[in-house]
Amino acid sequence: MKKGIPIVISAPSGCGKDTILEQLFKINDNLVYSVSATTRAPREGEIDGESYYFHTRDSFEKMIADNEVLEYTEYCGNYYGTPKKAVEDMLSAGKDVILKIEVEGAMNVKRIFPDSVLIFILPPSMGELERRLKKRGTESDETIAARIKQARTELDCADKFDYLVVNGELMKAVEDVNKIILSEKMSAKRNIALLEEVKNS
Amino acid sequence: MKKGIPIVISAPSGCGKDTILEQLFKINDNLVYSVSATTRAPREGEIDGESYYFHTRDSFEKMIADNEVLEYTEYCGNYYGTPKKAVEDMLSAGKDVILKIEVEGAMNVKRIFPDSVLIFILPPSMGELERRLKKRGTESDETIAARIKQARTELDCADKFDYLVVNGELMKAVEDVNKIILSEKMSAKRNIALLEEVKNS
Repeated sequence: MKKGIPIVISAPSGCGKDTILEQLFKINDNLVYSVSATTRAPREGEIDGESYYFHTRDSFEKMIADNEVLEYTEYCGNYYGTPKKAVEDMLSAGKDVILKIEVEGAMNVKRIFPDSVLIFILPPSMGELERRLKKRGTESDETIAARIKQARTELDCADKFDYLVVNGELMKAVEDVNKIILSEKMSAKRNIALLEEVKNS
Repeated sequence: MKKGIPIVISAPSGCGKDTILEQLFKINDNLVYSVSATTRAPREGEIDGESYYFHTRDSFEKMIADNEVLEYTEYCGNYYGTPKKAVEDMLSAGKDVILKIEVEGAMNVKRIFPDSVLIFILPPSMGELERRLKKRGTESDETIAARIKQARTELDCADKFDYLVVNGELMKAVEDVNKIILSEKMSAKRNIALLEEVKNS
């Protein structure tokens, strides 16, 4: 069984990564989603175990202590982390595992899985990002200003990713992310066994 | 103007690289083909700069001495090679340049253009490669055996390429090569300027 690829998707808040992923899963059936754990409060419509595993601070800190998270970070006062065993099991089953995590976590995943692919989703512009955040209508001006500031900090780390995808037009961005995944599956370093197979056939 | 990418396509004889390229140019209009330089005399109808760049022996050897060819070979008393400046000009014009060259030449291109993308086309199996070579019906058993032997030597270098594409079904292989090219265009290292642009927008 050829192992799957850990695929990290990071993006500043408001860049549309959730919508991209929703569409991506419809066009690529070898993908599975690594559900993150978090201590932030569920937003409307979010389901425990699907959107996130929602935890109290205490139970999250116990997971960290028990070495059960692949990576975790504290962001805007909340923990976000990746449950370890689930990811390893899915990769061994040949599935490409989508990890939707923050920039720092992405760097940690690369350290733990050097074969992982890091994709950063960019807004077309900072102005457009601000418009999208305001359009949600769920957050105060202060929160939006904080998110924009945070976005700038995250963009400063985007050059450490493997790929940059601009989310200007949704379906273009979805296709772009999928192209990257399918292309990576053809990289020579991931296909040494295939090469030997052809040589000996 | 964002620079183009040098794309090297190598494949053992009989793997269908010419047919793949023919179809690839139909679906990707940012590709240009690198025209070779030669010292052989122009044949009727051949146009300088289109069929080949025609050179005298002296001027070709001066190009070699001045490090103006990416790679070259001598065949039947004539030089054939890839002129560096033409490739650089097309790259500067934002075009992705297809270089159809042998394995050794591919390694030289990677040394000169570390940002080049090396794609190796594989047959589905050695048995299938042999069937395809025989189907041509133009070559003796000895020639076919020699080509198979040569193919094995080339396959031994395939792990030094960036990507491996199996040419089982033609249009699948064409799409695969195109996915690799489009995906590479989104690599972070090729988009540092874009990132700055978004940050400052």
